[in-house]
Amino acid sequence: MKLTVTQENLSRALSTVSRVASTRSSLPILSNVLLKTEGNRLLVAATNLDIAVSEKIGAKISQAGSITVPARLMQDFVSSLPSGTLELDMKDNKLQLSAERFDSTINGVAAEEFPVMPTIDGGSVAEFSAGEMKQTLQQVLFAASSDDARPVLTGVYMHADKKKIFIAATDSYRLAEKNIKKDAGDMSLLLPAQSLQELLRALKDDNEPVTITYDDQQARFKIASVEIVTRLIDGTYPDYRKLLPASFETTAKLSKQSLNEITKVSSLFAREAAGSITLVIDEAKKEVSISSIASQVGENSAHAEAEVSGDAVITMNSRYILDALQAFEGSTIQINVNGKLDPCVLTDPEDDSYLHVIMPVKS
Amino acid sequence: MKLTVTQENLSRALSTVSRVASTRSSLPILSNVLLKTEGNRLLVAATNLDIAVSEKIGAKISQAGSITVPARLMQDFVSSLPSGTLELDMKDNKLQLSAERFDSTINGVAAEEFPVMPTIDGGSVAEFSAGEMKQTLQQVLFAASSDDARPVLTGVYMHADKKKIFIAATDSYRLAEKNIKKDAGDMSLLLPAQSLQELLRALKDDNEPVTITYDDQQARFKIASVEIVTRLIDGTYPDYRKLLPASFETTAKLSKQSLNEITKVSSLFAREAAGSITLVIDEAKKEVSISSIASQVGENSAHAEAEVSGDAVITMNSRYILDALQAFEGSTIQINVNGKLDPCVLTDPEDDSYLHVIMPVKS
Repeated sequence: MKLTVTQENLSRALSTVSRVASTRSSLPILSNVLLKTEGNRLLVAATNLDIAVSEKIGAKISQAGSITVPARLMQDFVSSLPSGTLELDMKDNKLQLSAERFDSTINGVAAEEFPVMPTIDGGSVAEFSAGEMKQTLQQVLFAASSDDARPVLTGVYMHADKKKIFIAATDSYRLAEKNIKKDAGDMSLLLPAQSLQELLRALKDDNEPVTITYDDQQARFKIASVEIVTRLIDGTYPDYRKLLPASFETTAKLSKQSLNEITKVSSLFAREAAGSITLVIDEAKKEVSISSIASQVGENSAHAEAEVSGDAVITMNSRYILDALQAFEGSTIQINVNGKLDPCVLTDPEDDSYLHVIMPVKS
Repeated sequence: MKLTVTQENLSRALSTVSRVASTRSSLPILSNVLLKTEGNRLLVAATNLDIAVSEKIGAKISQAGSITVPARLMQDFVSSLPSGTLELDMKDNKLQLSAERFDSTINGVAAEEFPVMPTIDGGSVAEFSAGEMKQTLQQVLFAASSDDARPVLTGVYMHADKKKIFIAATDSYRLAEKNIKKDAGDMSLLLPAQSLQELLRALKDDNEPVTITYDDQQARFKIASVEIVTRLIDGTYPDYRKLLPASFETTAKLSKQSLNEITKVSSLFAREAAGSITLVIDEAKKEVSISSIASQVGENSAHAEAEVSGDAVITMNSRYILDALQAFEGSTIQINVNGKLDPCVLTDPEDDSYLHVIMPVKS
């Protein structure tokens, strides 16, 4: 293998793929990154067996070939070089890199020992824009569980119904759901949240198309020169939609910033109570007030003006409210409540494409 | 105690003083912040017994008094409030705080139980500008030791000689020394580096005067409304000036950016050798080259053009070089070397107010 690439392109590709190369794996070669010529391009790829990330960059190839080298060293090294042309030359499983004033040799491992990069033949296809997919992931990913005890909850459920695609995540204490108007047949994918974190890192706020190709086992995301292939999670996602209340006894509409302020202040006094705060919706006073559970350090109450219909008292974890508010784009939030043990649903009265459910704390 | 202050002023003062209030102390009250009316101002203060930081802010006082409250809660709380006027009211060792839509009570402890804030009567005085003091601290503080085994090396030594003030720090592997033209009599202060970190946080890049008042036991820094009093470290600082070589056999003058680049790249290949890299100064080639110690992962060499007089080979810790380069303001660095076991001195050929000494690694 012998070729030249620009430092900028190689550095970008290494930063895209390197995070999935883990030094903690029991297979040492998974901490390496694969470099492989393909036509007049260089494939840069890494995998942890659950997910494979690759990017193809333009290269001037004078001799085809492939090698794997330690991902972290390679990434740190290339990103430290000044911009310009890099020469890559492989000899006896050693990669020689030269730039204007730099000469390095990195000890590698034969590409033949690297796991075969997964591919999907055929399969169904859906297309999004990068900006739309990025916003969606930022709105739902944080609600997925990180607890491997219930693997399905560590996934994000993407399913189609009535010419809409629903993207949902829940850790059973809260649930985030985005819907996008798009006809996608009978799509039903359970994608590992960790894989989608990698996808999120590769997405920009632009109109670049993101293509998803999937079968029963895996899904592939393609954005420009980057390709991410992930396995799907095996299992049945809970039928969460039937838990969503159809109507509400009490609603309060108020400024997102005010709700954020009063929740944040109250949460400081709720540390001993694991963040529990009590929210009172008062139709007569036209306000939402939040007080902290009685605490050794002191107590707090704060209120905000609201458009209110009905009365309610509900105790929730303040962190879940703060997380949820970050996910809303608009400036107004509607709080929808039934009984004090029923799910509380946050919505944006101007935008029905996103909703967030928080389960109350028993108090 | 009963008064009003602005949220902005109280929040700023709490953020200035709160870092020294430690929850890890064996004296629980040291995790509190003292609030005390003084004339028409409110004193906000914290101490860890080694250092005391206080700020006085404008207040409308309707009843004099004092209280201490948990520093972290108070700071988080006040900084979360919207800007505007805050009412503070003390009743039975509880502090009531009210803002427009917020009502809180924080349980406090009587101010009488708080340690007396140290004061200095008389003493000698020196004056700097905030910008000058800030630059000086950024250039020397990082070279102080964090190892309590030799307490004097955890200090920064500030001493006067021949109408200059020298500010020096060393961990015995490297030494940073700044000099400022100023007549300061027979000043000789050994200041804890940790106290100067607090001072650094309070300094801006401006011409605000910083006054130092000191006696044998302690020193007080005053910047506008902020006052920092620190104990001095007891002990004799090593007579480091006599270790500074008077002349050099080999010198190399080169671009700081190039030296930084080639050091950084080589350091990546030096991880197994605890960062050791070998620097070769070559008069015939007119260059400085750096190679990493032979390593399992590979090897590297990189070079940069330089104005060279003499030849030298010296092995040093790459981290110390990178740290030192950050401390120089100019764009050119001069490397000054004698034998391979003698201290290497980095200077700026355009500015003799700062020098940095790195002890070589035996190789």
